[in-house]
Amino acid sequence: MYKTLVTLPRATAIAGSNIAFVKYWGNLDDTLNVPMNGSISMTLDAAHTITTVEFHPDLPADELTINGQPADWAAVKRASAHLDRIRDLARKYWSARIISTNSFPTGAGIASSASGFAALTLAATKVLGLNLSKSELSRIARLGSGSASRSIDGGFVEWQPGGRHEDSHATPLAPANHWDLVDIIAIISTEHKKVGSSMGHSLAHTSPFYQARLGTVQVMLQSVRRAIKEKNFTAFGKLIEEEAISLHVSAMSSRPSVLYWQPGTVALMQALRRWRDDGGPVGYFTMDAGPNVHVIAQRKHAAALQEKILNVQGVQDTLFCGIGSAARIIDSDLHPFGYGDSHVASLGKDTQNRLPTR
Amino acid sequence: MYKTLVTLPRATAIAGSNIAFVKYWGNLDDTLNVPMNGSISMTLDAAHTITTVEFHPDLPADELTINGQPADWAAVKRASAHLDRIRDLARKYWSARIISTNSFPTGAGIASSASGFAALTLAATKVLGLNLSKSELSRIARLGSGSASRSIDGGFVEWQPGGRHEDSHATPLAPANHWDLVDIIAIISTEHKKVGSSMGHSLAHTSPFYQARLGTVQVMLQSVRRAIKEKNFTAFGKLIEEEAISLHVSAMSSRPSVLYWQPGTVALMQALRRWRDDGGPVGYFTMDAGPNVHVIAQRKHAAALQEKILNVQGVQDTLFCGIGSAARIIDSDLHPFGYGDSHVASLGKDTQNRLPTR
Repeated sequence: MYKTLVTLPRATAIAGSNIAFVKYWGNLDDTLNVPMNGSISMTLDAAHTITTVEFHPDLPADELTINGQPADWAAVKRASAHLDRIRDLARKYWSARIISTNSFPTGAGIASSASGFAALTLAATKVLGLNLSKSELSRIARLGSGSASRSIDGGFVEWQPGGRHEDSHATPLAPANHWDLVDIIAIISTEHKKVGSSMGHSLAHTSPFYQARLGTVQVMLQSVRRAIKEKNFTAFGKLIEEEAISLHVSAMSSRPSVLYWQPGTVALMQALRRWRDDGGPVGYFTMDAGPNVHVIAQRKHAAALQEKILNVQGVQDTLFCGIGSAARIIDSDLHPFGYGDSHVASLGKDTQNRLPTR
Repeated sequence: MYKTLVTLPRATAIAGSNIAFVKYWGNLDDTLNVPMNGSISMTLDAAHTITTVEFHPDLPADELTINGQPADWAAVKRASAHLDRIRDLARKYWSARIISTNSFPTGAGIASSASGFAALTLAATKVLGLNLSKSELSRIARLGSGSASRSIDGGFVEWQPGGRHEDSHATPLAPANHWDLVDIIAIISTEHKKVGSSMGHSLAHTSPFYQARLGTVQVMLQSVRRAIKEKNFTAFGKLIEEEAISLHVSAMSSRPSVLYWQPGTVALMQALRRWRDDGGPVGYFTMDAGPNVHVIAQRKHAAALQEKILNVQGVQDTLFCGIGSAARIIDSDLHPFGYGDSHVASLGKDTQNRLPTR
């Protein structure tokens, strides 16, 4: 009876997706998502996930809604397994209702696992009374989805690969206001990809080029880090295109071969190079494990670029993103379980130095 | 006065282009076209060059006509340099009028250098009285264009890389009638490519993946040789796609990056894989250093495939090829210089065992 009257403990978190400039491809440990190499990304503002986690002591099983629809079995199972890790940490074993909304349409080919697992990690740990540092949150988010480790923080982020669970987490490289870059995401295909990232990561090791890729990553990381620090856009652009190609080289040469590119992907890659050669607006491409092209540009060229991108054959739409800030709690009600923390907490930049470390 | 009355010494040769299943990419010696690795190809029948070489003791300089048009300066210079090699061998220093006709339209994106230099080598050596073995012809043709070394012979051909001029030439693997394969060449773009093969070969070494490619070639050669011998089409198809990707991996990751693919290239690569998955007509792709796609198929599936290929967006036309026979002389008039050999000589299969070796 009283259950319908009291407010259930819940928290809502927002986390931005991220676009990697040095890519995560291949795991040292497939279960723990400890990667073979470090990676560098930029958190995105307009591509984000807002997730509310509400714990019900009497709910028979976890429930998950994504963009207003009940999620499929595999997604519920994956989210539930992630909550188990957090419940084990908190030693509280209530079931949860998870309501997750992406800022981008489902099936736009934009991966929601990075922002989704970052938001879920932050909201769930908050409700269950775990006050974790960003490194700890990044480590836990990583267990749900590797790239989610980079969506806990904002701005430019580097994921230190480590070699074990304990030392594999992201750290900030530069804040969101360091460099005014934009990511114009060109939607090429909204088809569900046949080979997901998880399968891709495990196939990586079958490519005859994968060892060579790993051999270049340490220098690539250093070069990208420096280009970001010095805001050298031309150097940066060349590096990220080379690195995107290196990821896709590994995928298209794995056994079996995975060709994520579609005609529109190549049309835009070629167009960007042609526009640069012709003195047009300057943008550089990078692609995750899918056909969509992320065009990275300086804000001054963004409008001209976006218009030209929309005219490239095979581009269905664009999503315009600036640099996002860190994942943060935007609403919470923790009273009924006595955590005394009902104000809106934040893991944004303004509080990041005051977070307790375990 | 008498010059207008006598017939000039001349010979006309035909040579087929070839499509490589294991690719030539990168040189040990850029001047001599001694390659970094061996390669395997199939000579094509319908994509061929017919070249007449007519020597004029009084012509001030070599002349070259391609498909009825005077060739540009660079092409004349390259052909002339090739004739110099043959003139040096024969110790006869007359200038030549070269009339060359390709069976495919100029600028269709089909390379004519393999068939062109094979035909030129055969015709010019014939007129100048050099009776050379196929190995010798292959070596000389190689100096004009590396892949021309594989167009002297017919059927399935392997180019032994050697390590010096003397030991780098093609040898026959299997005759044209060994296996009834076809090559449906899908013309994707007729634009002149920005980065030619010669530049590509020298850029190969700048790719971080090139060493890994070289490390796989010896096993690839053995596997392709075996698949041809056993006529195992499924194994063969998978190998040639992997190898084509390996070439393009090297090109797209070179510094600067060279992306030969166009949207239609990727559309057809994806379509071929989809048709195979769906039980449709089976074809496998391979691409040289350009956007056109060579669809290799068994003849029984050729008609169905060609129709589907023409419906793929970005495919402008197709050129249907069977397996070609060896380069051969189809007309000659050697009298005026007294070689006593005015009948139609042939380097075709019927005579290959009777050719003198030096």
